[in-house]
Amino acid sequence: MNLLQRTLAAIEPPAEAAAEAARRRQDTLTKPPGSLGRLEELSVQLAAITGQARPKLGRAAIIVMAADHGVAAEGVSAYPAEVTPQMVLNFLRGGAAINVLARHVGARIVVVDMGVAAELPRADGLVSAKMALGTASMARGPAMSREQAGRCLETGIEVLEREAAWGLDPSTGSGLGLVAAGDMGIGNTTAASAITAAICGQPPERVTGRGTGVDDAGLRRKVEVVRRALEVNRPDPTDGLDVLSKVGGFEIGGMAGVMLGAAARRIPVLLDGFIAGAAALVAATLCPGVKPYLIAAHRSVEAGHAVALQHLGLRPILDLELRLGEGTGAALAIPIVQAAAKVLDEMATFGEAGVSEAATKEPR
Amino acid sequence: MNLLQRTLAAIEPPAEAAAEAARRRQDTLTKPPGSLGRLEELSVQLAAITGQARPKLGRAAIIVMAADHGVAAEGVSAYPAEVTPQMVLNFLRGGAAINVLARHVGARIVVVDMGVAAELPRADGLVSAKMALGTASMARGPAMSREQAGRCLETGIEVLEREAAWGLDPSTGSGLGLVAAGDMGIGNTTAASAITAAICGQPPERVTGRGTGVDDAGLRRKVEVVRRALEVNRPDPTDGLDVLSKVGGFEIGGMAGVMLGAAARRIPVLLDGFIAGAAALVAATLCPGVKPYLIAAHRSVEAGHAVALQHLGLRPILDLELRLGEGTGAALAIPIVQAAAKVLDEMATFGEAGVSEAATKEPR
Repeated sequence: MNLLQRTLAAIEPPAEAAAEAARRRQDTLTKPPGSLGRLEELSVQLAAITGQARPKLGRAAIIVMAADHGVAAEGVSAYPAEVTPQMVLNFLRGGAAINVLARHVGARIVVVDMGVAAELPRADGLVSAKMALGTASMARGPAMSREQAGRCLETGIEVLEREAAWGLDPSTGSGLGLVAAGDMGIGNTTAASAITAAICGQPPERVTGRGTGVDDAGLRRKVEVVRRALEVNRPDPTDGLDVLSKVGGFEIGGMAGVMLGAAARRIPVLLDGFIAGAAALVAATLCPGVKPYLIAAHRSVEAGHAVALQHLGLRPILDLELRLGEGTGAALAIPIVQAAAKVLDEMATFGEAGVSEAATKEPR
Repeated sequence: MNLLQRTLAAIEPPAEAAAEAARRRQDTLTKPPGSLGRLEELSVQLAAITGQARPKLGRAAIIVMAADHGVAAEGVSAYPAEVTPQMVLNFLRGGAAINVLARHVGARIVVVDMGVAAELPRADGLVSAKMALGTASMARGPAMSREQAGRCLETGIEVLEREAAWGLDPSTGSGLGLVAAGDMGIGNTTAASAITAAICGQPPERVTGRGTGVDDAGLRRKVEVVRRALEVNRPDPTDGLDVLSKVGGFEIGGMAGVMLGAAARRIPVLLDGFIAGAAALVAATLCPGVKPYLIAAHRSVEAGHAVALQHLGLRPILDLELRLGEGTGAALAIPIVQAAAKVLDEMATFGEAGVSEAATKEPR
């Protein structure tokens, strides 16, 4: 078996016993049952993912995957393709939104060059895994070969493995407790729209939005490009590798690999926005068992994102009208996911605190 | 002039020049204009509140106001009134949800006894400002005197003033940058419903919910109690002190005072849930100029909360189906508000980072 096959085989069902123990504990904590709403649900999911009744999340990391898209030449973005390498340099200097937010929430950033169409300098914090200088245009044929798609996934798995091993302190067990996958790539909302249309069986106009901010003419062009890409390539919606290779992107494959690798290690994955959602669709097509390990950080302004989340059965934590990518929405949700774990672990029970319980408890 | 009058007179309009400078700077940062959605709006509001074009928020504090309600004797809560002092002790021992969340987000907690119906021990972190051993039942007459209502507001202002002075470091200017007001008081959703009905001109059934979790019979009883309280007392919706004294609570008055005191000092106020929303209605009735200083942290499950927020013209940041109070929803929003300020201040501009701007910028 190759790394991808081994990883898919290693993804186990979530731990129902730990989830049930977490649910029971929530009802003994000093608050009306259910009064912490989604925070309680999240804590139960974290128990199911980690297999711990009182999960203690280790450190958080944000893996930002960058690549270029041949389809950018079709005029689908408000920005020129040169912005991709420029923004990677901005990430490395700490000036981008994701840098500010990662510092704020205490998460480490790993930037991965999955296929930026420019030579980038060697730098600390930049993993070089260039597949090519950008994909081919999906409007004219497959974006990449099936073999490249497989290598993208395996690269994502390897990046996750390396990050999980980084700074691991066996005495405290404080390894990687939460991972988020973010993206950078001019043109990548076009790829995400095509993936979402293919896998969710939706028409292009339903899942194609303005991305970084194209005008009305740009949006019409973008919808047509997605339609053409699907007609030219006819991706098989039941085959994640086929969809990824024909209408995907190198960074999208890398992100899907991160998700699969994290699920295989029982590490919760925070999805960022539309691009991460498309990557999750690819991952879930390869292995539906990845879904219980995914947490949707936010709902993006991009209409296709809600379609992807619904297909995955995920409810977003935040709805802040974000449409930046980079992992910014995921970063903002990190403190909330950590809070869910801490409430479950650290709150006093009615018995411990000597607090009277309700006369009539609500049925759960 | 007394303290309340001086405070109301000190509340100035928000700083439009700083807000405009913040708006302009947002459009120069390395991201598509507007792509950080609500985070950008929040950053502009913070600039308007603080008068700084790039606001640097100091530390955050959560002021938890506790008091008992005579109306609890009418059977409007799933919990007995003895839970109020028990939970205050839980706050002081650090075992409640708000303790866990305040530690998580690095905020200080100040617990204030505004009128708990039990003698509480002297303790660090507990401010004693007991008005009485709980209010009288608003179902039979005014909850408190007009003079007591005024003292509640002034106590809240004093608590805010003391907190703003605490730990102030003039060399760094890192004073109090963000304050949240939370609540504890069995029966207080009934008071909040009556306040919301009175000030927003809504029928009791529209703004009365299950609180900590009453059953159907309890909910019908609660709606009737709110209706009776409004009939017996006929609060004047244009007079915040009248509404507070007749159908309010000591902790609700204290919270309204915190809001007014913070606005007078240009400190942003994070509203927690339904009780904080009712307190904000009282504060805004006394001084509409307080509204620009308020940030709604979340939308509670309680139906009346959405009515109060709409009346105040506020959109909540989070929607996590919370209904606990204590300031828990506000605590969860603290990292997001801080993130909004940091993005505005710390991100690189297109010029600084050498990143190309969009060919056609969106009109703002």
